[in-house]
Amino acid sequence: MSTITLFGLGAMGKALAAKYIEKGYTTTIWNRTPSRATPLVEKGGKLAITVADGLAASDLIILCLLDNDSVRQTLDQATPALKGKTIINLTNGTPSQARETSEWVISQGAEYIHGGIMAVPDMIGSPHAVLLYSGSSAEAFSRVETHLNHLGTSKFLDTDPGSASLHDLALLSGMYGLFSGFFHATALVKSQPGTTASGFMQLLTPWLGAMTHYLGALAKQIDEGDYATQGSNMAMQVAGVGNIVRASEEVGVTAEFILPILGRMKRAAEGGYADADVSAVIEFMKEEK
Amino acid sequence: MSTITLFGLGAMGKALAAKYIEKGYTTTIWNRTPSRATPLVEKGGKLAITVADGLAASDLIILCLLDNDSVRQTLDQATPALKGKTIINLTNGTPSQARETSEWVISQGAEYIHGGIMAVPDMIGSPHAVLLYSGSSAEAFSRVETHLNHLGTSKFLDTDPGSASLHDLALLSGMYGLFSGFFHATALVKSQPGTTASGFMQLLTPWLGAMTHYLGALAKQIDEGDYATQGSNMAMQVAGVGNIVRASEEVGVTAEFILPILGRMKRAAEGGYADADVSAVIEFMKEEK
Repeated sequence: MSTITLFGLGAMGKALAAKYIEKGYTTTIWNRTPSRATPLVEKGGKLAITVADGLAASDLIILCLLDNDSVRQTLDQATPALKGKTIINLTNGTPSQARETSEWVISQGAEYIHGGIMAVPDMIGSPHAVLLYSGSSAEAFSRVETHLNHLGTSKFLDTDPGSASLHDLALLSGMYGLFSGFFHATALVKSQPGTTASGFMQLLTPWLGAMTHYLGALAKQIDEGDYATQGSNMAMQVAGVGNIVRASEEVGVTAEFILPILGRMKRAAEGGYADADVSAVIEFMKEEK
Repeated sequence: MSTITLFGLGAMGKALAAKYIEKGYTTTIWNRTPSRATPLVEKGGKLAITVADGLAASDLIILCLLDNDSVRQTLDQATPALKGKTIINLTNGTPSQARETSEWVISQGAEYIHGGIMAVPDMIGSPHAVLLYSGSSAEAFSRVETHLNHLGTSKFLDTDPGSASLHDLALLSGMYGLFSGFFHATALVKSQPGTTASGFMQLLTPWLGAMTHYLGALAKQIDEGDYATQGSNMAMQVAGVGNIVRASEEVGVTAEFILPILGRMKRAAEGGYADADVSAVIEFMKEEK
């Protein structure tokens, strides 16, 4: 029978543990506040009171804690018990935190794989839950992959332990861009009496679907460094965005969600890309100090 | 045989005129700089030198000019010729500009329909080109609908002449949100050596497709005013976005595209929606004076 230990029983940690219990794993669970484990213990989970007990119970250890400071504080309670373990860290954080944690865990004699979960807890176990992994040893990942596949679709990216976090956060930044556009668009339409957000989705959903498809063409332009346009050029688009800003002001909706891209588009237009496609914005994404 | 007159031969106006010539219409074209008409005249278009000639040539008039000031300046050259015409104004502008232009055109004894084109010129004539229309007379639209259908899929929204522009600009604001997320995500991933934008699209495209589907659930929450969450609540999401900001700083990519939504999410969390879904942001979209 397979054994696994889960550290951290937030909403996501609970979903992960429940999935392994359901799959028949001997599932040990640990949480800083042990009372959160009660519903899982009733389903068959084994509560570890100390960190050392949790680590000793299984060779495969999954961490899903509040942040990477909590990871370090937790594992520091029982560093000798890390030796020989495979640590899968699904805790949210930045790429550099993942790299630091990887270095430290490996220095304790354990294998380290960092992961990013592209799903909400309800989706765990479905193929639509995508889990991105990276870590210095692709072999370590291969050895535990079948166990990880119970959680969703596993994708091993590369041997940079920071890569899973980088891609995870990049996808989330894409999502928040999409959400920003959704809120702006919906607020504009709802300024008109008698409209509903759901009614507007009949226009917005297919439109965003078509535009998401179009992103592939922008990506190709970016990879080739060739921003020639078949459609509206940067200067024309800057003028068009001005109408969105004015229309937002007319109805008292904030235009601030589009001001950053408008600023970068203007800089691109003034920086030699007035006749180029919007894809040239990628050349103007550096942070100003 | 059907007749139509097109005013304005920018990239879009040319595509519209070319489509009517192709469909066998007696197509009259006018442009402030007549030389731009030459390629279309070679295909069978009839050049009108004066505005009055252009209006006299057809009962159905399509305007696709630089802006609504140009519309007024152009039509002012021959106001008596407007009487009895149906004016389809596809010029980009704000809802209030459309309403003002409608009122004035109708006062000259003509019908007025405003339109917004959700397509690039290459798409004109394809069902994927969606054209939104609105105007005070739905009957006026019905009478010319078959002619407009040559340009793409026609949708008459309602009798507010500003509605087509409002929806047009709302859809564009959604697109620029999507683009903002795409540029941020792609810049983050490209900070890692050996990555390509096209390679990253294999993760980003299905992810954005899933999230676009999820927008329907957010829209339902917005319509019902019930922001209860099954997933991550606002406070957790605010913490998660902090990681995107830090990761962007680590690799020198601007985080400014997500700062506006982060600010609104923080305000929502502090304003009683800490346990709510991100959909509650819609309550915090007002412009500050």
